[in-house]
Amino acid sequence: MTAELRTWRLVLEYDGAAYTGWQRQPKGHSIQSVVEDRLSRVLGGEAPRVIASGRTDAGVHALGQVCSFRAARVRHPQQLRDGLNATLPADIAVVEAAEVNAAFHAQRSAIGKLYRYVILPGPCRSALRRGRYWPVRWPLDHDKMREALGSLVGRHDFTSFRASGCSAATSVRTIHRAALLQVEDELHVELYGEGFLRHMVRNIVGSLVDVGRGKQRPGWFEELLQIKDRVQAGRTAPGEGLFLVRVDYPAALLVPGAPDLDVSAAEDPDADE
Amino acid sequence: MTAELRTWRLVLEYDGAAYTGWQRQPKGHSIQSVVEDRLSRVLGGEAPRVIASGRTDAGVHALGQVCSFRAARVRHPQQLRDGLNATLPADIAVVEAAEVNAAFHAQRSAIGKLYRYVILPGPCRSALRRGRYWPVRWPLDHDKMREALGSLVGRHDFTSFRASGCSAATSVRTIHRAALLQVEDELHVELYGEGFLRHMVRNIVGSLVDVGRGKQRPGWFEELLQIKDRVQAGRTAPGEGLFLVRVDYPAALLVPGAPDLDVSAAEDPDADE
Repeated sequence: MTAELRTWRLVLEYDGAAYTGWQRQPKGHSIQSVVEDRLSRVLGGEAPRVIASGRTDAGVHALGQVCSFRAARVRHPQQLRDGLNATLPADIAVVEAAEVNAAFHAQRSAIGKLYRYVILPGPCRSALRRGRYWPVRWPLDHDKMREALGSLVGRHDFTSFRASGCSAATSVRTIHRAALLQVEDELHVELYGEGFLRHMVRNIVGSLVDVGRGKQRPGWFEELLQIKDRVQAGRTAPGEGLFLVRVDYPAALLVPGAPDLDVSAAEDPDADE
Repeated sequence: MTAELRTWRLVLEYDGAAYTGWQRQPKGHSIQSVVEDRLSRVLGGEAPRVIASGRTDAGVHALGQVCSFRAARVRHPQQLRDGLNATLPADIAVVEAAEVNAAFHAQRSAIGKLYRYVILPGPCRSALRRGRYWPVRWPLDHDKMREALGSLVGRHDFTSFRASGCSAATSVRTIHRAALLQVEDELHVELYGEGFLRHMVRNIVGSLVDVGRGKQRPGWFEELLQIKDRVQAGRTAPGEGLFLVRVDYPAALLVPGAPDLDVSAAEDPDADE
């Protein structure tokens, strides 16, 4: 007699510094492999595959990565959360655990993602925030950066900002919000959109710094969207400044139940940052 | 021919996790020993003693620890700052370097210190803030905690809150401000005062949590000040939640020059947290 499989959603916070990224790799230490390993311990041997909203690259952090799995042996969400927190390493934490609709899929069901990129401008470095920002020594013109960011909002072909190895079927994405925020001594680039191509946020930030330091005009972003050529854009900003802040889902999927819902999947399940 | 000794002030940020505390010890890895070692490299062999505003204990962090030293070979404050930042480990950073009045003494000249103690209430832990908060699972009554904190403001004998090994000549201190702040999901206890006894902030926070969880009444703080007995107060809160935020000095001492100033020293140079 086997118990019924139920679907679970986890919200994870992690420090990406020690990992090769989310996705399990033949070599190296991935967040997925650690989470799957510890989950199977907590579930007494049951070893579900854990699906994240998207891969995060080496060094990239998460405040609210969402992942899902199906298992029979979970009894109570708080036991799951506390059990995992007791066995996971200190640089990965479960913020939330909940049973969700059987149709919930952390990657395919995602409808919005918020990324934050942290720049520390100026000549100083920070000891307590080490590995969590991009130090940028050039003076940056915020107005010009905001002008450039403005041209990203809406539905565009982001070919110029995708990684060369990105395997997504289409490079068209919708960005709902693109903001530059001064937060104490940090400069935050926040992008909220339906989904992102591989390296898309980091390529946008790298190019944005070129605009901020005066190497390019703000109108260059408009041109890059037209040109559709990755080699024209700026460098890829380092992974350690990037945080996956939040992933949004249709409210109906966050409630346990049978998959009797008409829920539109994200447009490209292969997309990620 | 020897060059004239000039007096320098450094503002340091550090993550205390890997250190035995500020003060050089016969065994273990202290922040002072690392800073003195790297400073002597930057100064080409000249090896000044570096004096901090006060010792910080093992695990305690600093956003703005201030230290001073006298040296002949420093040329320019920015060179000093950048040279030290290039050679110091990633968990210690120089935020500021400046020449100051010859009478400046990081410990004796300090007139105010701001400490912040970070509590993370609730059942969750944080991966990105690991080692930088005290996790407190009991529900805490903020109003009662504020009432207790209120009785600390002013000039009092803090014998009940000093460490047993504290060597300060007097246990009378003045606290100018004692606040409890909710900052997103964190609870901050901020104490600003002339100076603090060894473990004083951590003993206050440990007792404050006893009040917040209902183990003691708010009036207990008033009693503890009267009783003058360390064993009556609560536990010492863990060092990893404590941050030395800022140290203040008389403005006249922050300007280079000869020590022709009538500057009152801090009341007790032996005091520290």
